[in-house]
Amino acid sequence: MFDVSPATVETALQRFFTGARLRAAAYGDHYVALWDALEVASQGGKRVRPALVLAAYDGFGGRDQSLATPVAVSFELLHTAFLIHDDVIDRDLARRGVANIAGRFNDRAVAHGAAADQAGIWAAAAAILAGDLALSEAHRALALLPVDAAMRARLLDLLDRAVFVSAAGELADVTNTAAREPLSVAEVIATLEHKTAVYSFEGPLQAGAVLAGATDAAIDALGEFGRLVGVAFQLTDDILGVYGDPAKTGKSVVADLREGKQTALIAHAGTTPAWSIIAPLMGKPDLSEAEADLARSHLTACGARNAAENLAQDHVDRAIAALDPEHIPAALRARLIDLADAAVNRVR
Amino acid sequence: MFDVSPATVETALQRFFTGARLRAAAYGDHYVALWDALEVASQGGKRVRPALVLAAYDGFGGRDQSLATPVAVSFELLHTAFLIHDDVIDRDLARRGVANIAGRFNDRAVAHGAAADQAGIWAAAAAILAGDLALSEAHRALALLPVDAAMRARLLDLLDRAVFVSAAGELADVTNTAAREPLSVAEVIATLEHKTAVYSFEGPLQAGAVLAGATDAAIDALGEFGRLVGVAFQLTDDILGVYGDPAKTGKSVVADLREGKQTALIAHAGTTPAWSIIAPLMGKPDLSEAEADLARSHLTACGARNAAENLAQDHVDRAIAALDPEHIPAALRARLIDLADAAVNRVR
Repeated sequence: MFDVSPATVETALQRFFTGARLRAAAYGDHYVALWDALEVASQGGKRVRPALVLAAYDGFGGRDQSLATPVAVSFELLHTAFLIHDDVIDRDLARRGVANIAGRFNDRAVAHGAAADQAGIWAAAAAILAGDLALSEAHRALALLPVDAAMRARLLDLLDRAVFVSAAGELADVTNTAAREPLSVAEVIATLEHKTAVYSFEGPLQAGAVLAGATDAAIDALGEFGRLVGVAFQLTDDILGVYGDPAKTGKSVVADLREGKQTALIAHAGTTPAWSIIAPLMGKPDLSEAEADLARSHLTACGARNAAENLAQDHVDRAIAALDPEHIPAALRARLIDLADAAVNRVR
Repeated sequence: MFDVSPATVETALQRFFTGARLRAAAYGDHYVALWDALEVASQGGKRVRPALVLAAYDGFGGRDQSLATPVAVSFELLHTAFLIHDDVIDRDLARRGVANIAGRFNDRAVAHGAAADQAGIWAAAAAILAGDLALSEAHRALALLPVDAAMRARLLDLLDRAVFVSAAGELADVTNTAAREPLSVAEVIATLEHKTAVYSFEGPLQAGAVLAGATDAAIDALGEFGRLVGVAFQLTDDILGVYGDPAKTGKSVVADLREGKQTALIAHAGTTPAWSIIAPLMGKPDLSEAEADLARSHLTACGARNAAENLAQDHVDRAIAALDPEHIPAALRARLIDLADAAVNRVR
């Protein structure tokens, strides 16, 4: 289906890490281990962002693999950098049940005889530096693209917006934790859009389209589609984080409740009389399975589940409506509609 | 003296922060506060890196302020990013006695009713994100430079090397803490070169020279000069950190001893019989003034102070020797010799 192939993105990433590791050898084993850990951190995801760059580029008739690949690599490494720094902020030592960069360097420090507090510093240093290295390469991949100045500036502006808005969203996600009352649904949606949808959906789609020379109307439409689909994905994630089947999603259904995560479910529940029962269960670190069941049944009974599901579907509908057939080629439009439907129809 | 003026760098930085703050307003007060904190973090230094970019550019006949300024801004913001992330790694809440970004957001969290552990997360998030934003702009300033592809690639390679080598040096600085024996003098020097000299001296000087169209021989000479002077500066800093006058340097003379910082002083002392007396005092968090005096007198008596001072002077001599008059214009050479002498002849 693609003239531009996802396999080429994998090859480009492998080549980048192989080169970095060779250079790193001159600076000692720890630095090589850092690059190993960074490469592992960049793997295991679904490569959603490269796929969106390539889909948009291909969809508007782009055929130059040597241009599309670095743009796809750029957004993937931006994602890697954000995940790594997000883990530092959340003080996580694992991701998807596997030791992350901090976890690996914590263990490495202990193996080298470091005391516990020193090991924590090794862990933080490794993860912060690895994120910086991934972020730097995300910029470099675009900066070196052999395109004219106007094209380069447009692509760099998309990357700049992705970084700027994601930082705002990440900060909001953290500062929201001090709120004693549930957020409004609008606040929840804004945070999802800023923290994730812009850099994961809007940016990659628009970058692929810009690179292929799409019209401004098409690029605007893809941006709106991306923001709405990105929010729909995150809303669905949050529903699955309470009601999903962990065997299928690989996601705990008590972790979000224990953390007191500010989701659309909670935002809606906060506007209902059921909140007085649900509130004491939210953010309870030792929430039992029985208490989680209780919270779940009240979230359903008060209409929060229904409201969140409708909200996600509404975002999908609006995303599809943004894809004006006058501006978006039919084949690309069909693929994006499939993507939008998949956002809300996932394994439960 | 300059056709290209440091004042223009200040103006460019101010304009960048003013623009960012305006954009940030759409994302809430916390994000505006983050940009305020980042601007403060970028101030108060001596603008060494911009001065070196401009000196080299001017020294090789460069006259285009609109090219030199973004390069100078790039290396200054790289420095800002590194300082901010270094503070996160070291868990510092202040720099030069003033609350840093983490310190400001820790206070901000408390003022917003956050619990102590939440405040720590606000602090880490703000500092990590601020560093990411500064690092991103360092890349963007170079990427947007209106020069041809070959020139852009050369400048981007210098920035890439600065990031790559500094990360190696920062990691080494952290992993060195697990060493139970003193490092060798060579290991101390390598860490100083990688963590600081490459991005602070080599990179800015070479970038200014490349931009002005200097010869390869000249660029190589500036690189060697930069690495050697950078190490001389750091060696002198470490000597002042034990023997300096805090009233003049603004630097404690017990902090490095209490931390057990791996310096050339300690590396040398580790090779002498005096080490058995000095070792128990190193890294003692509650080291008294009297114990610090004892360590100081033994470091002098065993020859460590002398050795470190000679090592710094030796680096200065070799740095000056690298400035082959055949390749380096006389006026630039004179300025760089003054700079090299100042590296070791500072307030005691």
